[in-house]
Amino acid sequence: MPRYKLTIEYDGVPFAGWQRQSNGPSVQAAIEDALASLTQGAATVYGAGRTDAGVHALGQVAHVDLDRVWEPGALRNAINAHLRPQPVSIISVEQISDDFHARFSAVRRRYLYRIVTRNAPLALDRERAWRLPAELDAAAMSDAARVLIGHHDFTTFRSADSQAKSSLKTLDRLDIERAGDLISVHAEARSFLHHQVRSMVGSLKLVGEGKWTSSDFADALAAADRSRCGPVAPAHGLYLVSVDYEPTIQASPKLSTS
Amino acid sequence: MPRYKLTIEYDGVPFAGWQRQSNGPSVQAAIEDALASLTQGAATVYGAGRTDAGVHALGQVAHVDLDRVWEPGALRNAINAHLRPQPVSIISVEQISDDFHARFSAVRRRYLYRIVTRNAPLALDRERAWRLPAELDAAAMSDAARVLIGHHDFTTFRSADSQAKSSLKTLDRLDIERAGDLISVHAEARSFLHHQVRSMVGSLKLVGEGKWTSSDFADALAAADRSRCGPVAPAHGLYLVSVDYEPTIQASPKLSTS
Repeated sequence: MPRYKLTIEYDGVPFAGWQRQSNGPSVQAAIEDALASLTQGAATVYGAGRTDAGVHALGQVAHVDLDRVWEPGALRNAINAHLRPQPVSIISVEQISDDFHARFSAVRRRYLYRIVTRNAPLALDRERAWRLPAELDAAAMSDAARVLIGHHDFTTFRSADSQAKSSLKTLDRLDIERAGDLISVHAEARSFLHHQVRSMVGSLKLVGEGKWTSSDFADALAAADRSRCGPVAPAHGLYLVSVDYEPTIQASPKLSTS
Repeated sequence: MPRYKLTIEYDGVPFAGWQRQSNGPSVQAAIEDALASLTQGAATVYGAGRTDAGVHALGQVAHVDLDRVWEPGALRNAINAHLRPQPVSIISVEQISDDFHARFSAVRRRYLYRIVTRNAPLALDRERAWRLPAELDAAAMSDAARVLIGHHDFTTFRSADSQAKSSLKTLDRLDIERAGDLISVHAEARSFLHHQVRSMVGSLKLVGEGKWTSSDFADALAAADRSRCGPVAPAHGLYLVSVDYEPTIQASPKLSTS
């Protein structure tokens, strides 16, 4: 059966998360239901990252095996037509080799967390950013963020119900960028623990408010103790930006579209 | 009665436009209704620009006379509390002199029009940009845009039902900026005719598609004939970004908040 790689954008707000579940609509189910109108029998869609309820994606990646060969652009358009009017959009489709797995072949994941510091509610960016009424010291947040770069035990910054066996992860990037009242936190790693980005951002916020020093931040990491984490940042500020794969398992350009 | 200047952000989608009207909810009515909970008697809110249904604002400006003096931050918070959950937010409030009029004192208005060129529907930017499936030639659009800069008869680029007596306007800026699949059109002038930005953008799109040359564009302007305009671009790509006033009629910093 031919395998397809899907690159997907979605608004996380109306969904109970990426993964199909019994207690609410999911992005995975939305795409599988759209595919059910196009294929014989059920097709399972495997995502690179199981984003939580409310978390958005600019470039989630998934793969699916279909019962026949499709021209990639035609498949993208057909899925999108069936997804309407849900806020999920297949940005691009590639036919890809059978050894490609959206989750296990991924070598890098990029997340963005958006904070807006202002007193007034967000009218246009409502549920697209975490609004905080007080100014944050972005330079202090940048200093503290450096503490987390590299290979560490991230127990402090993972959900207590995380299923991963190990808390050891390598964080490659955690940059703070300020533009007016928007603070963007860019995080990159091969993989992240459950709630890791939101836990790091929630603790960085304490640094930005002056409640924690960089050294408090370093102590919290070293403690490897979940109770030392700051309040977890809300889901609606988080975006899965992109997922990278080794070039060797990419499709040939002839079989892709965007 | 003390006069207040309000700077306002809103999502235009649920509204029939800025101006109070009988056939649907308006931003003006939303703010006036919020103020009615705070004041004795009705307060009329005067806006700098009467944005159409679906048009967004990042920095609409309005003024209102109230029956008592308010601390600006307290007034902003009180109006915002009463506006909830509507997507309208008072960004800042200043007490301002009686000769300030949001519409008539304005010396410059800035608009942004956002176009996204991609085949896939917009999930996160739905009703926040005009999506076009084909690539546009942004350089050709930039060339054509230069034709419109300066003092001209803009009859071609105004709504047929525009109420302004004169079609003569001075356009100070019309810049095309490309970043990936996002094309931003920045327009600035003392004032604009009804539908002027959307008419200019709709015609620039024809240039971007290669259907019009810069010279066709110049001919359309010179014809001063509404029937020569390209199809008007949709409302949901347009943002009123900001409105400028002479510094002499600004409030003192002590009386403002943001």
